[in-house]
Amino acid sequence: MRNIYIIGCCSLLQLILSCTGVKEQPALEDDSLVQYVDPFIGTGAHGHTFPGATVPFGMVQLSPDNGTGGWDWCSGYHYSDSIIVGFSHTHLSGTGIGDLADVLVMPTTKRVDLTKAIGNRDDYDFKSHFDHESEEASPGYYSVHLKDVAIDVALTATKRAGFHRYSYPQGEPQQVVLDLSYSVNWDKPVATALKFENDTLITGFRYSEGWAKDQRVYFAMAFSRPIIGYETADSTSMQPATTEFTGGKLKTLLHFENDGDRILLLKTGLSSASVDGAVKSLNEIPGWDFGAIKAKAESQWEQELSKIRITSNDTALKRTFYTAMYHSNLAPVIFSDHNQEYKGVNGKVMKADGYQRYDIFSLWDTYRAAHPLFTILQPDRVGDMVNSMLAHYQEYGLLPVWSLLGNETNTMTGYHAIPVIADAYLKGFQGFDIQLAYEAMKTSAMQNIRGVQFYKEHDFIPADLEVESVTKTLEYAFDDWCIAQIAKSLNYQDDYNYFLKRSQSFRHLFDSVSGFMRGKLSNGQWRVPFDPKRSDHRVNTDYTEGNAWQHTWYVPQDVPGLIDIMGGRERFIAKLDSLFTISSDITGENVSVDISGLIGQYAHGNEPSHHVAYLYNYADAAWKTQERVTEILSSQYNDRPDGLCGNDDCGQMSAWYIFSSLGFYPVNPAESKYAIGRPLHEKSVIRLSEGKTFTVTAENLSENNIYVQSATLNDIPLNEPFLTHDQIINGGKMVFVMGSSPNKNWNNSVNEDN
Amino acid sequence: MRNIYIIGCCSLLQLILSCTGVKEQPALEDDSLVQYVDPFIGTGAHGHTFPGATVPFGMVQLSPDNGTGGWDWCSGYHYSDSIIVGFSHTHLSGTGIGDLADVLVMPTTKRVDLTKAIGNRDDYDFKSHFDHESEEASPGYYSVHLKDVAIDVALTATKRAGFHRYSYPQGEPQQVVLDLSYSVNWDKPVATALKFENDTLITGFRYSEGWAKDQRVYFAMAFSRPIIGYETADSTSMQPATTEFTGGKLKTLLHFENDGDRILLLKTGLSSASVDGAVKSLNEIPGWDFGAIKAKAESQWEQELSKIRITSNDTALKRTFYTAMYHSNLAPVIFSDHNQEYKGVNGKVMKADGYQRYDIFSLWDTYRAAHPLFTILQPDRVGDMVNSMLAHYQEYGLLPVWSLLGNETNTMTGYHAIPVIADAYLKGFQGFDIQLAYEAMKTSAMQNIRGVQFYKEHDFIPADLEVESVTKTLEYAFDDWCIAQIAKSLNYQDDYNYFLKRSQSFRHLFDSVSGFMRGKLSNGQWRVPFDPKRSDHRVNTDYTEGNAWQHTWYVPQDVPGLIDIMGGRERFIAKLDSLFTISSDITGENVSVDISGLIGQYAHGNEPSHHVAYLYNYADAAWKTQERVTEILSSQYNDRPDGLCGNDDCGQMSAWYIFSSLGFYPVNPAESKYAIGRPLHEKSVIRLSEGKTFTVTAENLSENNIYVQSATLNDIPLNEPFLTHDQIINGGKMVFVMGSSPNKNWNNSVNEDN
Repeated sequence: MRNIYIIGCCSLLQLILSCTGVKEQPALEDDSLVQYVDPFIGTGAHGHTFPGATVPFGMVQLSPDNGTGGWDWCSGYHYSDSIIVGFSHTHLSGTGIGDLADVLVMPTTKRVDLTKAIGNRDDYDFKSHFDHESEEASPGYYSVHLKDVAIDVALTATKRAGFHRYSYPQGEPQQVVLDLSYSVNWDKPVATALKFENDTLITGFRYSEGWAKDQRVYFAMAFSRPIIGYETADSTSMQPATTEFTGGKLKTLLHFENDGDRILLLKTGLSSASVDGAVKSLNEIPGWDFGAIKAKAESQWEQELSKIRITSNDTALKRTFYTAMYHSNLAPVIFSDHNQEYKGVNGKVMKADGYQRYDIFSLWDTYRAAHPLFTILQPDRVGDMVNSMLAHYQEYGLLPVWSLLGNETNTMTGYHAIPVIADAYLKGFQGFDIQLAYEAMKTSAMQNIRGVQFYKEHDFIPADLEVESVTKTLEYAFDDWCIAQIAKSLNYQDDYNYFLKRSQSFRHLFDSVSGFMRGKLSNGQWRVPFDPKRSDHRVNTDYTEGNAWQHTWYVPQDVPGLIDIMGGRERFIAKLDSLFTISSDITGENVSVDISGLIGQYAHGNEPSHHVAYLYNYADAAWKTQERVTEILSSQYNDRPDGLCGNDDCGQMSAWYIFSSLGFYPVNPAESKYAIGRPLHEKSVIRLSEGKTFTVTAENLSENNIYVQSATLNDIPLNEPFLTHDQIINGGKMVFVMGSSPNKNWNNSVNEDN
Repeated sequence: MRNIYIIGCCSLLQLILSCTGVKEQPALEDDSLVQYVDPFIGTGAHGHTFPGATVPFGMVQLSPDNGTGGWDWCSGYHYSDSIIVGFSHTHLSGTGIGDLADVLVMPTTKRVDLTKAIGNRDDYDFKSHFDHESEEASPGYYSVHLKDVAIDVALTATKRAGFHRYSYPQGEPQQVVLDLSYSVNWDKPVATALKFENDTLITGFRYSEGWAKDQRVYFAMAFSRPIIGYETADSTSMQPATTEFTGGKLKTLLHFENDGDRILLLKTGLSSASVDGAVKSLNEIPGWDFGAIKAKAESQWEQELSKIRITSNDTALKRTFYTAMYHSNLAPVIFSDHNQEYKGVNGKVMKADGYQRYDIFSLWDTYRAAHPLFTILQPDRVGDMVNSMLAHYQEYGLLPVWSLLGNETNTMTGYHAIPVIADAYLKGFQGFDIQLAYEAMKTSAMQNIRGVQFYKEHDFIPADLEVESVTKTLEYAFDDWCIAQIAKSLNYQDDYNYFLKRSQSFRHLFDSVSGFMRGKLSNGQWRVPFDPKRSDHRVNTDYTEGNAWQHTWYVPQDVPGLIDIMGGRERFIAKLDSLFTISSDITGENVSVDISGLIGQYAHGNEPSHHVAYLYNYADAAWKTQERVTEILSSQYNDRPDGLCGNDDCGQMSAWYIFSSLGFYPVNPAESKYAIGRPLHEKSVIRLSEGKTFTVTAENLSENNIYVQSATLNDIPLNEPFLTHDQIINGGKMVFVMGSSPNKNWNNSVNEDN
């Protein structure tokens, strides 16, 4: 199959051609998958992704910065913008809070006044306009034409280093601004340093505080040609000429000879631990062959993308799918350097002995589907991600909640490192200390902060004692079920009993009169007034970023129990139907902005909804799951910049798409079991370890044939809409026959099983 | 005694005169103390105080905002500035991080484009220049002439309401901007609301995140004349005309008739709990009599200031002293409203039943001297401050570290609510539940975060496991001593033994070879390299905002033990001498900006040094304490805007001055005992409860006579340089005879006692 060239997508050939500055229609190889990735997907609307250059899970995520703050610029870039102030080396993918943007570099020909006080981006002399027509992005590559200065910029990256190629216009001054003071949103530099080691190497650091209270970036920056002069300022004061500078907000203007060579290359190595570590990161780019590094990055991406090979006639769908694959591999990031060192949560330089330290764990989001996906596609990284969480525990005293490059931000609810670790252990992953892991789980579940103190005392979190009490109770209850499973497998019977009991705490909050999970006061009375459509963001609310309609469904550890308290299968189905069909009005004066992607009151743009469409499977109505999943897949994702209906949240939105389009989803993300929805592709081949594959085939697939008529697993009829992790991981083939009408008898065994 | 009129100071009469816009030399009453307060002290250099209007411990601290961020604008205002963008209702006094600045109001005659994107203050159409000649501040009052628009602004306040008086120029448009989007430093509004209740009343709220993760301000704003028109924008979009608005960044432009009445008054009530609470706060200002409210505020201040009446011929000294008194009463602030409600750390609206909830506890600073000072001067508030800390514990699970209006910021080290509570209990304060307090102390001391997990395991915090390990160990050890004292008095013998043992953990970190407290690794080896002058701010350091020279002295619970491990009295004295006399060079590339006010390596500008000058007393060398305290009093404080050598830190720098100028200081702030320095005033009369007074007289006082020759307490010779809390609080008189040479035999009983 040959594909037309799509703006914003790149092929291997195109990458090579682009080095010459010539942009042509490339002849695509049939089997390249990077061609389907469009990093601009999610950079519009509220996806909060970035278009820059990175390798899978790369520490360096080198991307353009628009120079402005605000919610839609959490990644530094929003598709609606037309100004770039520079290219910094670290970014967040899909988050709802902005930070990072460390070590900003910008080429310019303009006169730059370094002493200008920076109020907003208008004050940056070196900013430039750009337009999307002269901008390209593909896995491991980003390029743009800076209109105001006629400079072409191309970026690529290795794990810990960024590589820039600037092409200046003939006869103009060749300058580079290195701005350590640049920051976004809450982030502020607290100390910066620059050392001119020689005429082609600068080292230094940037310490900052913001969402990450104490973030540290050491860097080493090498240039392909000598620096012939430089001026340095700290904030608004020029500094005396010397080779070493320290200050609160250093920036320097570097001059290069314009001797006919229009190309200047620079590469930047990073470390959170030391300058030495940053210099070693630089070794990842041995010479000055931009094309080679770019090709290597692309090849790493091809390797990751090819772990699932889908067959489909729908190119837009392939772009959506492979971009989701791409986005699901941007976090967590590699955090330890070549000395195995990193900045710990305890503020110390720590050593990751015998493993790779990762960080940026957006756990409230990613425990749901992104981490389960890693257990299939990233088996070599799962153990080290667990080890990273255990290191966090050892450094900080509790497992990570939302950890950000050696900081605990304590953002969002739950202690959701627990399901990730439990899932890894129960799926047989090794290489971490399960006794330490168990201690960490138990310590986190017995902590005295974050509402757990009330939970321990009352068996639920009373609404008069803690905000977002319903969400917190439901999520802690699920996490506790995970601890119980580990306790059981380690033979800690008392703990098993204790945490299993806690996992049933959802029952305290179900109000059988209204049919919703509701805030309950410490005196046992329901909180009034109650409006299941009402949302109050963070304030005076029993729900986190949502309402009762959205949060009532969170009992993945005991869906039969939920069905039971809701009055049985039929009532449960009727209520689920209502969720998707009633009005999408959300009431309140301070509605959470995170509620997006609405179908009825179902909100796909935020994580609490993610498992809900699959709940029909547990009530003998799998065909309704197939219907809803079809609707969500088609209405909430597309292959344009606005292709994500909410924050990608470090890959969770994308992981939902990957699972769901394959045809299954981890409703309980620590149960080694998947609920079957419907396959979206004719064929999906998942490449597993030891040469095994798991193939999902959809026979008789068409736009109208959304219902599963029958299924076989390894040629044996599969009569329930569930699949185990082992069934996937052992390899094999699952074949669905699709049709335009539901086969309501396909999964008639469910009720007996449950 | 008649005093000349000083710019920046105000008397009662001047206040009344200023209502007429006429500025004259007032006839001062002899006994008014507010005349000596200059709120501009500390607004220059790095004092970080604000000049605005407030009552003692007022929830509303209504003050001008320069419209810019950065370290020296943490209070919203810095003396070096010449622009005002508005007057907001909440500010921080003397902190090192900026936040608050809620509900900004600005009168203007200019054309205002509400849709302009705000990058920096140049973008505020309504900003104005001002100069200090047309600016006045006194307790409870602030006024300024806005040059660009020829508007005179005067501000005063009650506990929970701010009162503005604007005088517009004849014939110009009378407008007021109400800007809920205005924010400083990290702070960002997350949700705002405005409701035009009628033509003279607006209500609404501003929720924000920043240093305080979840801050909520509800307001009710009333006007003396009807609003005749208004336009409202959310961020950069004008909103359709209606009476209720919600949005992320609301601001509104209000128009008033210019019918010859040049005066417009507005008053704003606040609450952190509800609009209803804010409306009730408004009732604190029943009518429109600006002068009466201002007089009432002044009278409240006079009441507080007159708790200590000093006799001195030195007016500058009186200004320094009474401004310190003023600054020591700006935090914590009253936090519960007239419904007794406030926003809890748990995110809930909480009720302060039977007590007054306070918040803004900068405990790392204020436990040292500000809280001990409250036990003398604010006996009626001490119990409620403790109750507020216990409420924080119940809402959050741990005692406050640095609590900010219903948020735990976890800023700085230690669990220093413990000494405050212990001190209150041991001094006999009642009205709080000591069993609950004990549970809270113990829970905090046994927590599993903030390095305590390592401390529990290793008996000290290993330098390889946690940053700032020396400071944390030393401070936890002191706090543990406090718990031990309470355990003893409650007869918890096992706990007493346990915590008393922990209070000796400082011994693990003393290196007898170098003579310093040093970072020790978990393997028992000292961390190398070691440079006692080196400071690294937050990073790769064993010390918090300082170096080994500054932090080695922190053993207030066992100074004899410290003297002993340092090799005895003479070596201890010699080392203390060195501290004050060696070079002030601090080595390192990332020296903490908080190190200021240096005398040798002693750093008065930051709290870890505050007790150090008094340590000579414990080594039979009280005359050296007298010498050093004299030097610090005269060199580190003055009556000008640069009169504080470092952040006032919610009154701690000021409390040091008050104690030290009286002649004594709480080296161990939970021991009910004070080390005697030297009196700075001829006579100081402390007004105590039940009509009692404690008088300190200095006979033969002069600039050269800095040494105590002899002392009597209630006519009985006092031969040791210590005083108990009871001796003060029971009332009485202490008489010092001063001289120009030390009487080294005055305190010869010390060694025997210790």
